[in-house]
Amino acid sequence: LESGMFVLARSILDKMPACDVAFLLESSPPGYRKVLWNLTDHDQHGEILEELNEDAKDGIINLMGTDNLVAATEGMETDGLAYVLRGIPDSVYRAVLEQMDTQDRQRVELALAYPEDTAGSIMNTDTTTVRPDVTIEVVLRYLRLKGSLPDTTDALYVVDTDNKLLGDVSLSTLLTEEPNSMIADVMNHDTEPLQALMEENEIAKLFERHDWISAPVIDSDRQLLGRITIDDIVDIIRENAEHSMMGMAGMDDDEDTFAPILPSAKRRTVWLSVNLMAAFIAASVSNMFEATLEQVATLAVLMTIVPSMGGIAGNQTLALVIRGIAVGHISSSNTRWLIGKEAAIGLLNGMIWAILVATAVVLWKGDLQVGYIIAGAMFINLSIAGIAGVCIPLLMHKYKIDPALAGGMALTTVTDVIGLFSFLGMATLVLRH
Amino acid sequence: LESGMFVLARSILDKMPACDVAFLLESSPPGYRKVLWNLTDHDQHGEILEELNEDAKDGIINLMGTDNLVAATEGMETDGLAYVLRGIPDSVYRAVLEQMDTQDRQRVELALAYPEDTAGSIMNTDTTTVRPDVTIEVVLRYLRLKGSLPDTTDALYVVDTDNKLLGDVSLSTLLTEEPNSMIADVMNHDTEPLQALMEENEIAKLFERHDWISAPVIDSDRQLLGRITIDDIVDIIRENAEHSMMGMAGMDDDEDTFAPILPSAKRRTVWLSVNLMAAFIAASVSNMFEATLEQVATLAVLMTIVPSMGGIAGNQTLALVIRGIAVGHISSSNTRWLIGKEAAIGLLNGMIWAILVATAVVLWKGDLQVGYIIAGAMFINLSIAGIAGVCIPLLMHKYKIDPALAGGMALTTVTDVIGLFSFLGMATLVLRH
Repeated sequence: LESGMFVLARSILDKMPACDVAFLLESSPPGYRKVLWNLTDHDQHGEILEELNEDAKDGIINLMGTDNLVAATEGMETDGLAYVLRGIPDSVYRAVLEQMDTQDRQRVELALAYPEDTAGSIMNTDTTTVRPDVTIEVVLRYLRLKGSLPDTTDALYVVDTDNKLLGDVSLSTLLTEEPNSMIADVMNHDTEPLQALMEENEIAKLFERHDWISAPVIDSDRQLLGRITIDDIVDIIRENAEHSMMGMAGMDDDEDTFAPILPSAKRRTVWLSVNLMAAFIAASVSNMFEATLEQVATLAVLMTIVPSMGGIAGNQTLALVIRGIAVGHISSSNTRWLIGKEAAIGLLNGMIWAILVATAVVLWKGDLQVGYIIAGAMFINLSIAGIAGVCIPLLMHKYKIDPALAGGMALTTVTDVIGLFSFLGMATLVLRH
Repeated sequence: LESGMFVLARSILDKMPACDVAFLLESSPPGYRKVLWNLTDHDQHGEILEELNEDAKDGIINLMGTDNLVAATEGMETDGLAYVLRGIPDSVYRAVLEQMDTQDRQRVELALAYPEDTAGSIMNTDTTTVRPDVTIEVVLRYLRLKGSLPDTTDALYVVDTDNKLLGDVSLSTLLTEEPNSMIADVMNHDTEPLQALMEENEIAKLFERHDWISAPVIDSDRQLLGRITIDDIVDIIRENAEHSMMGMAGMDDDEDTFAPILPSAKRRTVWLSVNLMAAFIAASVSNMFEATLEQVATLAVLMTIVPSMGGIAGNQTLALVIRGIAVGHISSSNTRWLIGKEAAIGLLNGMIWAILVATAVVLWKGDLQVGYIIAGAMFINLSIAGIAGVCIPLLMHKYKIDPALAGGMALTTVTDVIGLFSFLGMATLVLRH
């Protein structure tokens, strides 16, 4: 591509499926992205947009004119359309809607009316429904007339004349049961439908636990609205897990690896500011003991060890608890057990590392007193780090603060303050006597 | 349950699907787990084991006698059976195999012969195959005779007389095409089969990119061996993302939230030891400047700020790059661009934070000289942190070291050493003049 072989590149891109083009776009720095996008087939634009991550999608839409966007969105499925149009500027959004036909517009407005991240906003409206009082033979004839089924269809939904969901009948059942059986007799009555306002994280947990391929979405009247398919759920599951990982490093999970420099630097500022405050809090703890530090410079050399070990021990517990909260394993019934367990591990680790570190320090510095001090501080800090590692995320979760985002910083501040305070405080006490 | 209402609990458990019982077991501390397990229905044991995470599964198997384990594994599907039997002690494994019938034993031995985490080890052998030279009508009659299809079947595989894969035909096609069409005319010839030795991470990426529900597994002769279904892939995707998050905190992603105290403490020791070494490396850097620290105790108070900011900035970049490597967006073609981008962000952030921190320190300590020193050190450390945040994980990935595991510790050591060295080094130079 760098050598300007555009014609060749275009013919290669034309042959690629949309998902691969999207992957290629996501893997390219902004400059290349623009060139690549202009080389792609216009007919594929809609599909490619749908497959891109949020940041990359918004970047590309900014490059497109409204006309092109309207052309690209033609014939797209509701969930994809809602995804593409969410977050674009209001003026462009209105222009796109105006140029759509009525049916498409209604579908999109329906989906966008539901809050982001609920079943209503990620569902697809392409359900295939049947009545309970017909035979399989009739359904088969209807399907052959229809000629095709939407992607990822594993079941047809059985509804009454009011479009209320009665259950579902899987494609397997249609193929394996006798043609003269009634749908009512072979259908699955235990379908667990999703409420339109259900949160996507809850939905993902249900899909994962029950190994669903698709699930129907209903409104409060049990009327069938649409369906959610596993391919959307896979994205949600990965995003959630990434959210924990990126969040712990103070990054937004939507952050595009190849985002331009200025927006990237700006987004990272928040986290660096928070850390600066935490660092100054820790520094002000040391500041309380400036007189002691002046007397014994060795203390300054050693004072970073205890906070560092406390931070690591606390973060191990924190990661465990954040994952436990995310997958739903931790509830009020087992928190007390968990706090007890992590406190016990903290005490045990505290004892082990107090002895090890003290020995190392005495061997290095030849000062028995400093050994006692660092042992005491290490024991205190590791014991508290374990408890803080459980309690901080649980309290945050209770007060609706995301522990993946704020937990690590809060924890490190606690272990830094306690580590420095116990080490320098004990040193001050020992020096006075 | 605590009040001893075992009969009630048993009847509730009996009515729960296996996946919910497994979730309940995973959410329980070890003591309760044992009680709960003994209350569950024996017929469900196999299904429950299959749904448990590795740590919890191995714990429960230790509670079961060999006879019970054999009984539980009866009638299980190959992939579940392979999962349950992997990692159990050799003597138990042989005893279980001996009590199986020949066909089951062969299936399990086949699956366990493939290395863990390859297509062969996670595949299921319950494929339904058809020949290309028959009509849909014939297939429909065959399916009705069969009476049912395995779970998550979205397509039948078309094979020749040698069991070599020719393509697939989806259930949708069987339902919507005319009964007198030949399979050869309606089948999909572009099926992308998975090689038995393909790695599960690669497979997960393919499933995610192509929105597959299931995919056939073949050997090097194109002979059909089995199939992999989306429900297993969902687990892999979540585990991979969790691996990055837990790994960055120095935890094993298999770690059970409710694991007993001693094994937990033991597992965390490795990471704390590594950190202790890192902390001592940082301390030995400060130690080089003990004379300077003795002269100006304020330096000791402020010396933790620069390493802390460097660590945070570096970790932001690291998280971005680790995710980029995990999803496959980063390759040799775009690393140079990425290093350039992160270096630029580092320089920009370095300038901003150098000015801010220096101002804060001058206001606090009223010492202009210390302000200059901390500004210089901050600029150096943040600039290098950005570059280190890209280069460390990329180098580790090149040399097959997992950056999610070792990256954070290596990075923090680098930013600590450079932060302390630049801050204390410059202070020493300034003091001499």
